[in-house]
Amino acid sequence: MKLFSKETYQERRNKLKKSFSGGLLLFLGNEESSSNFKDNWYPFRQDSSFLYFFGLNLPGLVAVVDLDLDVEIIFGDELTTEELIWHGEKPKLRDLAVQVGISQTRPMKDIGNYLKNGKQREIHFLPPYRPENTQKLIHWLNISGPRIPAEASEELIKAVVALRSIKSDEEIAEISRAVNTSVNMHRKVMMQAKPGMKEYELLGMVTAEAVAAGGNPSFLPIITVDGQILHNHNYSNTLTEGKMLLGDFGAESDMHYAGDITRTIPVGKKFSVVQKEVYDLVYFAHVSAIQALKPGVRFLDIHLLACKKLAEGLRDMGLMKGDIDDAVHQGAHALFFQCGLGHMMGLDVHDMEDLGEEYVGYTPSLKKSDQFGLKSLRLGKELEQGHVLTVEPGLYFIPQLMDQWEANNVHKDYINYGKLANFRNFGGIRIEDDFLITRDGSSLLGDPLESSTQELESLRNR
Amino acid sequence: MKLFSKETYQERRNKLKKSFSGGLLLFLGNEESSSNFKDNWYPFRQDSSFLYFFGLNLPGLVAVVDLDLDVEIIFGDELTTEELIWHGEKPKLRDLAVQVGISQTRPMKDIGNYLKNGKQREIHFLPPYRPENTQKLIHWLNISGPRIPAEASEELIKAVVALRSIKSDEEIAEISRAVNTSVNMHRKVMMQAKPGMKEYELLGMVTAEAVAAGGNPSFLPIITVDGQILHNHNYSNTLTEGKMLLGDFGAESDMHYAGDITRTIPVGKKFSVVQKEVYDLVYFAHVSAIQALKPGVRFLDIHLLACKKLAEGLRDMGLMKGDIDDAVHQGAHALFFQCGLGHMMGLDVHDMEDLGEEYVGYTPSLKKSDQFGLKSLRLGKELEQGHVLTVEPGLYFIPQLMDQWEANNVHKDYINYGKLANFRNFGGIRIEDDFLITRDGSSLLGDPLESSTQELESLRNR
Repeated sequence: MKLFSKETYQERRNKLKKSFSGGLLLFLGNEESSSNFKDNWYPFRQDSSFLYFFGLNLPGLVAVVDLDLDVEIIFGDELTTEELIWHGEKPKLRDLAVQVGISQTRPMKDIGNYLKNGKQREIHFLPPYRPENTQKLIHWLNISGPRIPAEASEELIKAVVALRSIKSDEEIAEISRAVNTSVNMHRKVMMQAKPGMKEYELLGMVTAEAVAAGGNPSFLPIITVDGQILHNHNYSNTLTEGKMLLGDFGAESDMHYAGDITRTIPVGKKFSVVQKEVYDLVYFAHVSAIQALKPGVRFLDIHLLACKKLAEGLRDMGLMKGDIDDAVHQGAHALFFQCGLGHMMGLDVHDMEDLGEEYVGYTPSLKKSDQFGLKSLRLGKELEQGHVLTVEPGLYFIPQLMDQWEANNVHKDYINYGKLANFRNFGGIRIEDDFLITRDGSSLLGDPLESSTQELESLRNR
Repeated sequence: MKLFSKETYQERRNKLKKSFSGGLLLFLGNEESSSNFKDNWYPFRQDSSFLYFFGLNLPGLVAVVDLDLDVEIIFGDELTTEELIWHGEKPKLRDLAVQVGISQTRPMKDIGNYLKNGKQREIHFLPPYRPENTQKLIHWLNISGPRIPAEASEELIKAVVALRSIKSDEEIAEISRAVNTSVNMHRKVMMQAKPGMKEYELLGMVTAEAVAAGGNPSFLPIITVDGQILHNHNYSNTLTEGKMLLGDFGAESDMHYAGDITRTIPVGKKFSVVQKEVYDLVYFAHVSAIQALKPGVRFLDIHLLACKKLAEGLRDMGLMKGDIDDAVHQGAHALFFQCGLGHMMGLDVHDMEDLGEEYVGYTPSLKKSDQFGLKSLRLGKELEQGHVLTVEPGLYFIPQLMDQWEANNVHKDYINYGKLANFRNFGGIRIEDDFLITRDGSSLLGDPLESSTQELESLRNR
């Protein structure tokens, strides 16, 4: 188990405690997850906030910060002698806890009483996203299941989001390692994808690269010749000449920081003329957005800037028409760019998504829009130095959506529906890289990866 | 989604129904499983009994066989228009259901009422192993959580076990495909493992091979230079000359049938003299057990036969002593062979482990022993034609266990504790292949994979 220094975890917890005058902070670690029977497990993934404050990458732990008694306790069980025989000698939990600056460990059976004794006091917990952790909260805190989300502590959520949003230098180094593995995963696909292959063969290569670096993919990879399908976890298509291949995937490092990169490449050696035209437009929007990244700017405005660049290009191609500022304001471009420009990234690929977009990506004075397109923008608020985020504009030609809009005359003043027929089978293009917000701009995380049509074609022709 | 013919699923359900005179059979499919936030999913794994009877490899389905009304219904929701945009056009649930011989589908919201209306009748369900499915049963059937396991239907468990235990020809073909991918995974390691590598680099290769064949690993691979640690999911060791590498892993095919193979190879080009001696002994036990496989023989007796062969060899090496039949009867050999000789295999790598070992591996008249060693034998009962199982003897030198037994004088009449010192760092050896029980013996599933020391060394020296 790779850990930061004891002081790192202590400092994180000390900063967290400053937001509270009393009560208990309760952090539930994750359990093993069963696939097709109880003991057939998925790879273990610890909860990210637990990792952030307590570092210990083991199943079955719960941490309590008791602000009134000023103690920090890890609840969990040492291996029994029999378990030791099957699992091998492991460091003791109490020794591991010391490595993250915690001197008190207790058996898990004690937690019920500990929390019951704390019942007069406020118990702060984060919203659970795994059913077994919901069950524990129901059981320990005597809250009914449906009330759990509302009983999660807004105060704790906000304090955790404030800390985890600003990445430290050692976190940035870890994220960069994850991004570099992600770069290697993409290079593998760029070098090896060939007409006739199945998408799942590439999935194999990509997974191998993440695992062989000591981690895992940071999310289920998207590797598809149907790039217009935004959430595509089907890998059964055959790569055919003339199509493009969209790969959106990344690695999680051995310390569980994420990388997340997208590239769209021609299945053959070259983009077609129209593919290149659309690609160049996405590329231009990508570059424009990156140039606008800096502290103090709302990511919402950068998203809208990218939308405007895309819409202007679509107008030049004859697919959109009318006043482009109006079109973007109305959301007409979302026929082609249905999602958001990017999201926070860190210990989670969508960082802190479990804690709620309203806290991570928005503020009390900047609520998320419910306009189609904007409602999928995960991050809208002002950028700060230390934020890490993705920039991932795209253009997606979704036949079902085009038909639906045309049939309902949606935004007909801005869309040239007559010109769309040629694009029904075009697919989709996305370009995504990961950035750190610096004092006066941004810096690309990880090694640069080929992204212009020229760079990609030159790589595909080796 | 790959399916068998409609008739296959209908026939399986018809056979199942014959065991019941009335009531409802309720089969819960699996949901997506979240890793570090709700929408970051592990690869979807359908419940195996659901796959067996209903074939549909999609999350969020429930099947009801209403024996009184003689109807079969799949409960589940069609994609909404918005989901269609994000996930792409998919076959309709009602059309998929027809492919497995079911004409009635209903929205999931209807299931609560359907089950409530059936409340006067008996509702049979299998024991859940995922917390979200436990929750559904609590909610729909108004049973308290702790009572759920006891309320699972023994009648249904027995009927399902009876059917799933006997593999059809088309299942055997699928299992063979999974085993062949497993063979390829092992060949990869045998050809590529080199001193200086990290175990997780090999994990990457092995995973890639399973994924690139359109499936997944059938369980978390064991790839370790510490083969004596039986449940080892740590991959951080470096391969060093002189050690052995134990690989226990297999593929799940795209239809979710499993393969499961173990080999132990030298990290260098050759086994040492003592490694070869121990290996040859495990190999001999393996061959002896395989020769004993046939219908009508209890797998418990084949396990004991293998134990005896191992114990005789250990006596010849000077590690055991005394009357070997007595030693095995007392369980003294379990110092070196702590686990079982094998298990059923099919849609699960430990087939039907969720349904209970007492039904899958034992009978009312043959209960599992609680002797150390025997209590880890998953399969004891009489073999039948059509069973598919693993044969996996091994010898494991576990320092903690040797110390514990020696300190307590356990089986001191049968163990030469004085001779064990040389084996403290030996590690462990296991050899495992997969077999079908035929009319008068057994047949190896999949292509033969190198397993003798000679074969392995010749492969390692290419």
